[in-house]
Amino acid sequence: MIDLYTAATPNGWKATITLEELGIPYQLHAVDLTAGEQHTPEFRALNLNGRIPVIVDSEPSMTIFESGAILLYLAEKTGQLMPADLAGRYLTIQWLMFQMGGIGPMQGQAVVFERYFGEDVPAARERYKNETRRLYEVLNARLEHNEYLAGEYGIADIANWSWVKTHRWARIPIDGLSHLGRWIDSIAARPAVQRGIELPPPAGVAAKQKEMGASITTR
Amino acid sequence: MIDLYTAATPNGWKATITLEELGIPYQLHAVDLTAGEQHTPEFRALNLNGRIPVIVDSEPSMTIFESGAILLYLAEKTGQLMPADLAGRYLTIQWLMFQMGGIGPMQGQAVVFERYFGEDVPAARERYKNETRRLYEVLNARLEHNEYLAGEYGIADIANWSWVKTHRWARIPIDGLSHLGRWIDSIAARPAVQRGIELPPPAGVAAKQKEMGASITTR
Repeated sequence: MIDLYTAATPNGWKATITLEELGIPYQLHAVDLTAGEQHTPEFRALNLNGRIPVIVDSEPSMTIFESGAILLYLAEKTGQLMPADLAGRYLTIQWLMFQMGGIGPMQGQAVVFERYFGEDVPAARERYKNETRRLYEVLNARLEHNEYLAGEYGIADIANWSWVKTHRWARIPIDGLSHLGRWIDSIAARPAVQRGIELPPPAGVAAKQKEMGASITTR
Repeated sequence: MIDLYTAATPNGWKATITLEELGIPYQLHAVDLTAGEQHTPEFRALNLNGRIPVIVDSEPSMTIFESGAILLYLAEKTGQLMPADLAGRYLTIQWLMFQMGGIGPMQGQAVVFERYFGEDVPAARERYKNETRRLYEVLNARLEHNEYLAGEYGIADIANWSWVKTHRWARIPIDGLSHLGRWIDSIAARPAVQRGIELPPPAGVAAKQKEMGASITTR
């Protein structure tokens, strides 16, 4: 059994979408970021960095944090969502790293300066929106001649899509990026993806379930 | 044979240190970032994202960009610098991802606002210095009970060290982080690391070598 500690954020959706695509049983534990649950000693025992998502696998016994490591682990564990051959595997890892080191942090900073920062800092806001748009253009160029980032649909797509799909929230335009748009829509149509981005459920729903004694187990 | 396209930056050193540690032959191609060589069509054919480092392996025939993917590929190819067991492998990947998604982008932004940005933006400058210091504290906590990040010395250490070692350049203090300090010094003492951070040689030296008809081949 896999226990997933997560929240409704792009990095969280990477994990829920992957688990829903794989169709393996897992227990979802919603971490309330607004209440600071990620900073508790219990959570820090799972991840010193105090960040979601984290998985705890029982067989083999493993605790893994960092969403990119979790996706790679789940793909290797199941032999799904990543090509088996060396070239396909490293195409996947390369585009996964592109998300981890590029799209994720840059779009994350764009959102901070667009929506959460205490003061308006136009120079920083523009910097991160422009850089994220540039990275979107790189994805668009890759997708011009490839249906998916690493040839076949897999964890590299899930990782990047979970961020790109929130482009409106970050106020980053995708006009003129027709291949990216096609890829966004194609992944959004997948039933497992649609389930994954609804997890964990909003706090009110989760509290109600807890009150009724129900834990959130999927599959 | 492996061809490495790189420059003297933290992400570049990750690759040169790893190759020097492995002791496998490779040909180094210095990419002049100030001249914009990373934006040429020739370089973009290697990496759509226009970023160093990139490796081209001849056996098997593979081109890989994203420094994190390169390090993982080289460790797997050689069976070195990463434990062979599943738990050790994923500890390595987890701390490699921590660098890719955390230390790298956050310290990178700190340096931009400390040294390169056109205007002084104190709010952004402080944000990234504080976040990088927080990430250093996470590393320090990990290193309190572990000699290296994933148990034994390997690519997770090389990746994080290549950034942390430039903490003075980023003007991020490491006072009070004694475990981190011990780890920095221990890795800095390794001969392969000392060779790796001198590569590629400064532009003047490289130009002289080129003029003399010498290509830079190590080992």
